Amino acid sequence: MESAIDQHLVCPRSLSRRVPDDYQPPFPMWVGRGDTGVEQVVMAYLGVQYADESRRDQALATLRHLVSTFDLDAGPLSHDLTHHVDNRGFHNLMVVAYWPDVATYDVWRTSTEVAGWWDSEDRLTDGLGHFREVTAPRVEQLETLYAFQDRLPGIGSVMNRISGEINEHGYWGSMRERMPLSQTDWMQQRGALTVLEGDPAAGGRVVVGGHDNIALIRSGQDWIDAGPEERSLYLDEILPTLEAGMDFLRDNGRDVGCYSNRFVRSIDLDGNLLDESYNIGHWSSLDKLERWAESHPTHLRIFTTFFKVAAGLEKLRLYHEVSVSDGAHQLFEYVNCHAGTGMLRDVSGV
Amino acid sequence: MESAIDQHLVCPRSLSRRVPDDYQPPFPMWVGRGDTGVEQVVMAYLGVQYADESRRDQALATLRHLVSTFDLDAGPLSHDLTHHVDNRGFHNLMVVAYWPDVATYDVWRTSTEVAGWWDSEDRLTDGLGHFREVTAPRVEQLETLYAFQDRLPGIGSVMNRISGEINEHGYWGSMRERMPLSQTDWMQQRGALTVLEGDPAAGGRVVVGGHDNIALIRSGQDWIDAGPEERSLYLDEILPTLEAGMDFLRDNGRDVGCYSNRFVRSIDLDGNLLDESYNIGHWSSLDKLERWAESHPTHLRIFTTFFKVAAGLEKLRLYHEVSVSDGAHQLFEYVNCHAGTGMLRDVSGV
Repeated sequence: MESAIDQHLVCPRSLSRRVPDDYQPPFPMWVGRGDTGVEQVVMAYLGVQYADESRRDQALATLRHLVSTFDLDAGPLSHDLTHHVDNRGFHNLMVVAYWPDVATYDVWRTSTEVAGWWDSEDRLTDGLGHFREVTAPRVEQLETLYAFQDRLPGIGSVMNRISGEINEHGYWGSMRERMPLSQTDWMQQRGALTVLEGDPAAGGRVVVGGHDNIALIRSGQDWIDAGPEERSLYLDEILPTLEAGMDFLRDNGRDVGCYSNRFVRSIDLDGNLLDESYNIGHWSSLDKLERWAESHPTHLRIFTTFFKVAAGLEKLRLYHEVSVSDGAHQLFEYVNCHAGTGMLRDVSGV
Repeated sequence: MESAIDQHLVCPRSLSRRVPDDYQPPFPMWVGRGDTGVEQVVMAYLGVQYADESRRDQALATLRHLVSTFDLDAGPLSHDLTHHVDNRGFHNLMVVAYWPDVATYDVWRTSTEVAGWWDSEDRLTDGLGHFREVTAPRVEQLETLYAFQDRLPGIGSVMNRISGEINEHGYWGSMRERMPLSQTDWMQQRGALTVLEGDPAAGGRVVVGGHDNIALIRSGQDWIDAGPEERSLYLDEILPTLEAGMDFLRDNGRDVGCYSNRFVRSIDLDGNLLDESYNIGHWSSLDKLERWAESHPTHLRIFTTFFKVAAGLEKLRLYHEVSVSDGAHQLFEYVNCHAGTGMLRDVSGV
């Protein structure tokens, strides 16, 4: 049994845990470990939005273009692709890419190929919506949790060594306690969303300013290799409740502190659906996410189901990654996206 | 908004809260306040057990005798009566009595009338089972929580001034944080149950030794004055799940750290049922109670229902009181009770 907080990130506590260190979790779980040289990571969600199917081929081609830029020298360590339809009926293709340091990401982002494409007037006229939502949490601001030990998804490509069985899980508050920064910091919301550029109501190009300690969760399910029993466990037992919870956050998030919630389905480069999905949630603070997770009926049902089955999972892969980040290390930019997209909804009040 | 921890019980923290002090609860709740002179209270659960209905009149007469001793000079501040059938089919009548200090209780307990009756050989031969389960938590070891503000039940007769709206509720961990001792102490289990006198398997008179930080919860429902809507809310919506949860703890408590769990129905002196009930649970430690409460499907369902309705409750009265106590201030004594009664089950392994 080891702490979710990696040894080199342990520091003298000014804030205590909720449970004593001899707490015994009810089943094993693991976290990703980064090399000690990894200090700050980048998570870049890049999106293409279109109103109807007629734009699908163009949108997929754009997604493939984005992916092609990852082959540049300073490209990300890993990426994956998704599709979802949002609550205004728009289609969204997204690619999320992970970098192990900000400097490399900045080289990529400012390269002629990337910056030139993004800043081009063509983005305003190509008939698609475009967005990028990028955060760069320090490793003290980041936690992961896996019910498996190999082929770590998401930020697991950066935090890619698996831990031993960890102590901090199985109780409310453990998500926070897996974050090294929780040893000394409440990670409370500081500041509010602001419009830095453009007008959300008018469309066009809009840049939204974030704020310290926006929390970002990616919570995933992979049933690619699952046998019939685990497929049914996920598709028939977990998924309906999960969808209800994710729909609630998508449609009522503002009331509970959730800026944006997207339940997305993994796809390949041609847009074919894969047996993998995840949720991407942006929250005004970690404690708002905690309050929702520990009190909403849908999430509690998912949680109790997971408790029942966790120890017996074989091929069904369940995981999450949660981070907070400084406002200075966030970028939320939208081009011709509808006013309910991402951070636009709550910064504009539309 | 005020702290659940009364001003004279606030001390420098060595353990931090789970949430920051500016946390905002989702609906109002209140706690009982004791006078500063109240330092340690006594909660005495006195029981009469009988195997079948033929003993009912005798058992009720015995219960009335117990109640009559409360009129002695050093009697308790308050008491109430209950009936329940346990999972071996035995009937149990109980009276719980509350004293505001140990000295007064000791005068009562050692009086000729009380000690003489309890120690009499008649208790071994009167055809009934008898038990007393007494704990004396210091006010630092005690918390209450009420969804109403008048006529405080249970230990509320001692902690009888109502607070203003308190901060520490509505999140997992708030029960612990309402206890003043949580500022400096994890309140972990120290020691184990032991047989101090007698042989649980043989029956007769058995005294069980407790241990530091046994946790005791009384969690109650009073629908006496409830209108049709709130009666239905309780009886049709809350009660079925509550019973399922309480049955689980009664029958499987050992697996989760619950020594004893009795879901009891209030009665009058003649044994007539009242529209009031509560649960009495003894736990090996507060953290075992926390883990069950925050992860068991039945309790989570009750919790989410309560969240939905709490702000609108009118006449349906929901509350709880939770304490831990030192082993030195516990008494668990059984005379001719079956081996599954109270602490006997887990001390004897029967």
